[in-house]
Amino acid sequence: MDMSKKLLHTPEGVRDIYGREYAGKLYVEQKIHDTIISYGYEDIQTPTFEYFDVFSREIGTTPSRELYKFFDKEGNTLVLRSDFTPSIARCAAKYFMETEEPIRFCYLGNTFTNTSNLQGKLKEVTQIGAELINEESVEADAEMISLVIEALKSTGLKQFQVSVGQVEYFKGICQEAGLDRETQEQLREYISGKNYFAAEELLSQKEVPEPYCSTLLKAADLFGSIDSLKEARQSVHNSRSRAAIDRLEAIYEVLKLYGVEEYVSFDLGMLSKYHYYTGIIFKAYTYGVGAPIVKGGRYDKLLQQFGKDAPAIGFAMVIDDVLEAVQYQKAKLPQGVKRKVLTYTAEDYAEKLQEARESRRQGIPTLLIRK
Amino acid sequence: MDMSKKLLHTPEGVRDIYGREYAGKLYVEQKIHDTIISYGYEDIQTPTFEYFDVFSREIGTTPSRELYKFFDKEGNTLVLRSDFTPSIARCAAKYFMETEEPIRFCYLGNTFTNTSNLQGKLKEVTQIGAELINEESVEADAEMISLVIEALKSTGLKQFQVSVGQVEYFKGICQEAGLDRETQEQLREYISGKNYFAAEELLSQKEVPEPYCSTLLKAADLFGSIDSLKEARQSVHNSRSRAAIDRLEAIYEVLKLYGVEEYVSFDLGMLSKYHYYTGIIFKAYTYGVGAPIVKGGRYDKLLQQFGKDAPAIGFAMVIDDVLEAVQYQKAKLPQGVKRKVLTYTAEDYAEKLQEARESRRQGIPTLLIRK
Repeated sequence: MDMSKKLLHTPEGVRDIYGREYAGKLYVEQKIHDTIISYGYEDIQTPTFEYFDVFSREIGTTPSRELYKFFDKEGNTLVLRSDFTPSIARCAAKYFMETEEPIRFCYLGNTFTNTSNLQGKLKEVTQIGAELINEESVEADAEMISLVIEALKSTGLKQFQVSVGQVEYFKGICQEAGLDRETQEQLREYISGKNYFAAEELLSQKEVPEPYCSTLLKAADLFGSIDSLKEARQSVHNSRSRAAIDRLEAIYEVLKLYGVEEYVSFDLGMLSKYHYYTGIIFKAYTYGVGAPIVKGGRYDKLLQQFGKDAPAIGFAMVIDDVLEAVQYQKAKLPQGVKRKVLTYTAEDYAEKLQEARESRRQGIPTLLIRK
Repeated sequence: MDMSKKLLHTPEGVRDIYGREYAGKLYVEQKIHDTIISYGYEDIQTPTFEYFDVFSREIGTTPSRELYKFFDKEGNTLVLRSDFTPSIARCAAKYFMETEEPIRFCYLGNTFTNTSNLQGKLKEVTQIGAELINEESVEADAEMISLVIEALKSTGLKQFQVSVGQVEYFKGICQEAGLDRETQEQLREYISGKNYFAAEELLSQKEVPEPYCSTLLKAADLFGSIDSLKEARQSVHNSRSRAAIDRLEAIYEVLKLYGVEEYVSFDLGMLSKYHYYTGIIFKAYTYGVGAPIVKGGRYDKLLQQFGKDAPAIGFAMVIDDVLEAVQYQKAKLPQGVKRKVLTYTAEDYAEKLQEARESRRQGIPTLLIRK
């Protein structure tokens, strides 16, 4: 292969995007951004790379081996952000340490994950998201879910569901059953990975008594409409799990006020592999993309890592995935930017140039091309 | 320093931006982008990192030691882009190898330079720019310069100048004087660095005869209005240098048609340290920022590196620098996004929520806050 051909390659997992496809991506991006801004969120931009510690095991959600790492001239380890939440948490602590009023941030930018198991997954994607800090209310939870739904709807997407869980339900049962932290973590991993056989084996091995054993395994199966919460309530007797159900029901009432309840379902087996969610947790699924296109939840302990004790809730969506879903569902996307084309000859160039200037002034993209 | 405080730091030379300042940056970015799009340019996005070869010495404009380098899992060297032009050239060759019609691209994204000599310079900045490929005409040169001027004007900036050079003028004299390639390169470096003493010494050392010696040194001093070109023409007798002057005069005629000539001056000593410019070269200067806020020019040989023999011209501007100039010149910037604030109590929440929904539907950013 000659040098010039070799130069045409992009690294595995990253790509160029242009023409109609990029016009579609920018359209989806703008629609979602407009929706987040309409809720009063403020744009924020953080650096593309940060010190490794900001994405360390205690804070980040990406395993260290999947972070792109490099060094600055002083020998510090830097990483390309794999996620915005740690950076936004850092900003909230750095610039708003004393602020007690709600803080609403919107971010938009690219994130990087050095996965070796690609399966068509991009290593660089564009993420957009929102974070609401200093608010622990039911209204805040509902605002976030409603925002996700309206943002997805704004792109033209019709068929999607936001599945909402509450990690406190599971934690309540674990606590009542007296499970140690390690067993609880292990069980959480099995159940969120839908590995019920392993979960059952673990419970039997740890000699977890009935009815907790059945209740824990059943929790993984509790998903569906608002009615599924009634069944969930009957399965538990501890106040922590019941408070979790109360919370979800209260959120649902607010979601009805927003008129978005048809997009919402519940899933008490959604526990996430991440350690940092402390309350509700949610994911949006759609036809056309296998993995969830939105992930979010409450993480009231994260900001403590940065020295600010404040509740927070947020979500992130991958624009590239949303675009894929929109294309799959054949929602209307702009067919690229419409351009006016003016051709000129040496004789009429001055005239055509004035015509182009006028047309551009009116906001019409106008090309001036020699005949 | 405790851990949480240490975590608040960002790496040297990169920063967070939010609130009014970021609103200003997004405003400037959008105005410039709108202007480029109005000229019929198409958005394109390339990966944040590429294989090292794309930014190698033959192609890129950033010294290797100033590139952020890291490795993929296969051991290939990747670099964070320091500039968009090589990536856009790669795309033009990869996706439009056979296309002979003009191609117009617009890019917007962050670039990275690992400078050790900071002097307040950011290591991560946002660049926007345009590239016009497959066009070698005077009209193309003028379009690019007019685009730069209208883009800067659209941000509210008033006091700026676009200084235009033509490297062929200098090359013509060098050729006539019989300078070897190495001397020519060395001289170019001295003159573009305004190091006239070294230039004079070099010419005397190489025993360059008169009148070439004076003409070359004088070229460095030829700058100013369109009239300076007359003087430049009289100093040279070779056809290559004279064709360069013809070209600049023809471009100026078109710039008058665009109505932007008051922003244009000429500088035949502008030679740039970069090897790849082949025709006109331009920079925009403004009060408030020392370094040029726009750099551009014609680079008809660059695409050959990617196997496509096509003329091209382009420019890049650093949004962060333009914003600084706009702020310095006290041009009007939006004072952040205006938000409507609705406060609610437990009693009137449902009502206030409906009011917020309606207001958001009308495109008014609306906050819903507990009283």
